[in-house]
Amino acid sequence: MTAIDLNADLGEGFGRWRLTDDEALLAVVTSANVACGFHAGDAPTMRRVCELAAERGVTIGAQVSYRDLAGFGRRAMDVPPAELAAEVAYQIGALEVFARAAGARVAYVKPHGALYNRVVYDAGQARAVIDGVRLADPSLPVLGLPGSRLLELAAEAGLPAVAEAFADRAYTDEGTLVPRGREGAVVTDPDTVVERSLSLARSGAVIAQSGARILVRARSLCLHGDTPGAVGLARRVRERLVAAGVRVEAFA
Amino acid sequence: MTAIDLNADLGEGFGRWRLTDDEALLAVVTSANVACGFHAGDAPTMRRVCELAAERGVTIGAQVSYRDLAGFGRRAMDVPPAELAAEVAYQIGALEVFARAAGARVAYVKPHGALYNRVVYDAGQARAVIDGVRLADPSLPVLGLPGSRLLELAAEAGLPAVAEAFADRAYTDEGTLVPRGREGAVVTDPDTVVERSLSLARSGAVIAQSGARILVRARSLCLHGDTPGAVGLARRVRERLVAAGVRVEAFA
Amino acid sequence: MTAIDLNADLGEGFGRWRLTDDEALLAVVTSANVACGFHAGDAPTMRRVCELAAERGVTIGAQVSYRDLAGFGRRAMDVPPAELAAEVAYQIGALEVFARAAGARVAYVKPHGALYNRVVYDAGQARAVIDGVRLADPSLPVLGLPGSRLLELAAEAGLPAVAEAFADRAYTDEGTLVPRGREGAVVTDPDTVVERSLSLARSGAVIAQSGARILVRARSLCLHGDTPGAVGLARRVRERLVAAGVRVEAFA
Amino acid sequence: MTAIDLNADLGEGFGRWRLTDDEALLAVVTSANVACGFHAGDAPTMRRVCELAAERGVTIGAQVSYRDLAGFGRRAMDVPPAELAAEVAYQIGALEVFARAAGARVAYVKPHGALYNRVVYDAGQARAVIDGVRLADPSLPVLGLPGSRLLELAAEAGLPAVAEAFADRAYTDEGTLVPRGREGAVVTDPDTVVERSLSLARSGAVIAQSGARILVRARSLCLHGDTPGAVGLARRVRERLVAAGVRVEAFA
Repeated sequence: MTAIDLNADLGEGFGRWRLTDDEALLAVVTSANVACGFHAGDAPTMRRVCELAAERGVTIGAQVSYRDLAGFGRRAMDVPPAELAAEVAYQIGALEVFARAAGARVAYVKPHGALYNRVVYDAGQARAVIDGVRLADPSLPVLGLPGSRLLELAAEAGLPAVAEAFADRAYTDEGTLVPRGREGAVVTDPDTVVERSLSLARSGAVIAQSGARILVRARSLCLHGDTPGAVGLARRVRERLVAAGVRVEAFA
Repeated sequence: MTAIDLNADLGEGFGRWRLTDDEALLAVVTSANVACGFHAGDAPTMRRVCELAAERGVTIGAQVSYRDLAGFGRRAMDVPPAELAAEVAYQIGALEVFARAAGARVAYVKPHGALYNRVVYDAGQARAVIDGVRLADPSLPVLGLPGSRLLELAAEAGLPAVAEAFADRAYTDEGTLVPRGREGAVVTDPDTVVERSLSLARSGAVIAQSGARILVRARSLCLHGDTPGAVGLARRVRERLVAAGVRVEAFA
Repeated sequence: MTAIDLNADLGEGFGRWRLTDDEALLAVVTSANVACGFHAGDAPTMRRVCELAAERGVTIGAQVSYRDLAGFGRRAMDVPPAELAAEVAYQIGALEVFARAAGARVAYVKPHGALYNRVVYDAGQARAVIDGVRLADPSLPVLGLPGSRLLELAAEAGLPAVAEAFADRAYTDEGTLVPRGREGAVVTDPDTVVERSLSLARSGAVIAQSGARILVRARSLCLHGDTPGAVGLARRVRERLVAAGVRVEAFA
Repeated sequence: MTAIDLNADLGEGFGRWRLTDDEALLAVVTSANVACGFHAGDAPTMRRVCELAAERGVTIGAQVSYRDLAGFGRRAMDVPPAELAAEVAYQIGALEVFARAAGARVAYVKPHGALYNRVVYDAGQARAVIDGVRLADPSLPVLGLPGSRLLELAAEAGLPAVAEAFADRAYTDEGTLVPRGREGAVVTDPDTVVERSLSLARSGAVIAQSGARILVRARSLCLHGDTPGAVGLARRVRERLVAAGVRVEAFA
C-alpha cells in the first residue's frame, strides 16, 4: 500500500494580518510548513500553529526564508552563505521552542519562496541552507524539489532528502515545473488536480505539459491554502487519496 | 570563600554595525548576555559569540528584549502579555540553536533595556517574561534586580531567580538604583567602581548615595562594555576580585 | 446646510497582506487616512491608494504611527519626543511623494492606534507629533479626538485642529469614548450606527451610554473598513447623510 | 578652471549604532549621500544630517537602497520593478521632509550598495530606480558610474546623469572598477589616492591596473568615511585639490 504525505504552508500571517486558514488546513495535511518570522510568522502565531498541529498529530516543519517581510520572501537575495546558514538556523531554533512547548519537535525544513526556487539550481545557497539545517540538527530532513541541488547536497551531507510534487502545477518532460507566468503553468481545474494527486501518490505518473507521461517520484504532495477554494480542494484531494486506499501520513 | 559571577551584554551589533568588543569582554566575564535579534544581534553575530563563549567556557544567557531595533529596545512598549511571552520564547529558541551548535546551552535569561526596567515593577509584563522563559525551558534561571517583580514571580513560578548588582551605579537607601539622569546616578571613578565591586562581591555592602551603608545581595555583577574604557575597567574589576580571593565563576 | 467629512483608514496592508477594501472605501469616504509604512502600508500600496484617491477626489491624509509592524501600531511605546517627531515627519514625507505624484497633496495628519490613544492625554507625545507635523508642513491640519491634548496643542501651535466622532462607539457623559473592552463600548446594530451618524453630522448630538443626550462637535466621522460588513455599513451611512441633505465633503 | 564635487555617504547609522563621522565629513564634502532608512539611517539621524549639511552649505542627496537593514543594503535583491520604483520614491520623500525643514532640498539621488552595483548592468532595475526618482521629482539628477545603465537610461529619461569616479579604486582599461576582492582592487596608499584625485579632477586621467593611462570623465569624486583614517584622507584630498586651484563645489 502506497503512502503519501500532504504538506502546506501555515502560519503565514504577521501581527494583524492573516493569510492561511490554519485550522482548516491542519484538518487536511500531515505536515505543516510553519513560517518562522522572516517572510511571515509572528511569534504568537507560531506558538498557536504548533499547539494546533501537535494536538492534531500534524508534523511540524520549519519553513525558512530570506529575511524579507515586505516581499513575503519572494525576492531572491544574494545572502552571503555564512549569513544565510545562520539565518536558517535562527529560524529553526525559534520554531523549535514552540514545537517543544507543544510536546512536538521541528521534524523537517523546507525553504520558502525565492529561497525555494533558488536552491533548485544554486549550489552555494543550497549548501548554506544545509549548513543552517545542520547547525540546528544534523539529522533533520529537508523537503524540496526532486532533482534540486538542495536535495542532492542534503543527501551528500547525510540529511534525509525528501522530494515533493505539485498536483496543481504543469511539468516539463524533464520533470521540472513549468515556471509560473508561462501559459498553463498552473492547473486550475479542481477535478484534474484531484486526479493528478492520486496518480502522483500512487505511481508518480503525471501528464506533462507536452502530453507525455512522466514520472515524478515524491514522498509528499504540496497543497496550497492561500487562494479562494484552496482549502476545499485540499480536502477533496485528501478524501480521494483515502478513498483510493492511499495511506496519507507524514514522511517524518 | 565567596563566589561572584560577572555578566555583560554581548553581540549587540546588527548587520554592519558593532557596539561591543565581544572578544575582549569574553576574556573577562563569566556570563554573556547575548542579544537575540530583537533590539540587536543578527544571526551570524549570535553564532560567533556563542562559539567564542563556548570555547572560553563563558556561560551563555539570552538577553531578551522588546522588538525594537530602531530604539535599541530602550522604548518601553505595552506588548500584550501573550505576545510578549511568545516573543521572549522565540528569542530564547533562536539563541539556543547557536548555543547547542557550539556545544553549550542557553543557561539563563536576562531582559534588556526598557523591558528590564519595566519588569522591576510591572507584574503583568514580568509574568509574561516568565511565561516565555517557561515555554522555552521551565528550569531556566532568570537574572535581574533584587526586589524586582521579575525575580519575585520567577521564584514563585519555580524558576531560579538570580540577583545582580551594579558597581558603577548609585543606590538609594532602599537598595534600588538611582535612576539614570539624576545627578550622581553613575559612578564614573574607576577606582571607586573597582572597590565597590569587591565590597559587593564579598558582603553585598555598598555605600548608598546618602552615605548610608546598605546591603545588596547579588550573585552576579553587571559590567558594561559599550563605553570607552569599559573593557579596561571590567578587566581591573576581575583582577581585583581574583587578587582578593573571590572566586569569579558563573552562577548557572 | 451642514457639512461632514467621512474618514477611514486605508492602505493598511503590508507586502503580501491586505486588510482594507481600499477601492470600495474610496467610493464612500471623503478623507483617506493612508498608512505610511510604520504600522502598515508598503510603498507600492501607498502609491496605489494615492492614485485612486486622487482620481476620485478623495483627500489624502497621513496616518502616522509608532514603528511597530508586528503590533500593527497598537502597542503604546515610550518613544523619546525628538525621535517621535522625526519619525512622524519621515512618514508624512514618504506619503507626500506619492500624493504629489498623483497630483494631490498630503492634506492632514491623523495618528494611528496606540499613538492616537496616547496623545489624547499625554502632552509630551502629543507635542512630539505636532513637532513632526510642523517639520513636514507648518500649516497641516491634525485630525483627532475633541478635547484631546493633541488637538489642544495643535491649536496652540497654530495648526488647524479638526475633531472627529465615532458613530459606532459608545460615549461617556463627558463626551469621551467608552474604552474598548468595556461592555457596550462598540455599537454593533447597523441601523443605530446610521442614525447616530446622522445626528452627529447634523447637530453633534448623541445618546451617551448613560442615556443622557450629549454634544460631540466634530467636523469628521470616522468609519471603519476592516471588519465584515464594514464597507456596506459605511455606504449606508453616506447614503443616509446625503438623503438627509447633509453635505458630505472633506474638511481639508 | 576645473570644478569637482566631493561626495560621501553620511548618516549610515541606525538607532543606537553609528558608522560615519558625519560632522567631520561635512567639513570636507560638497555633496552628502544621506541614508534614508532602508539600509541605514533612522529618522532622527536623517534630520540631524540634513540640518548640519544645510548649515554648512553641503548639498543633500538621497542615498536609496534595497530594504535590507540586516545586510546593510549589500545583498542584491530581485525586487519587482514597480515595487522598487515605489520604494525608491518613498525614501526620497522621507528625506525631502528633513531637507526642506532645514531650508534645503534633496538635490540628487544615488543608489547604495548592491543596488548601486546592479544598476551598472541591469536595465530593468536601473529603469525602476529612474521611475522612482521621477515619481519624486522629474528633474532630479542621478549620480552613478560612468557607462552604467543607470546613467544611460537617466539621460534618455531626461534626468541629469552625473558620473562619479573613485580615487581609491583600481580601474580596468575599459574604465570600469576592478571588482572588490580582486587583488589590488583598492588603492590603499594615501599619497597615491591624493594624486589620483587631483588627476581625476583635472583631466579625468588615471592609471589603470594594467599601467595604461585611461580617461574617466566624472563630475564628482566619491570619498569614503567608514574606515579608520578615512576622514583624514578625505581632508587631504580636498586640501590638495584646493591648493592646485581646482574648484571644489557641488554639481547640483
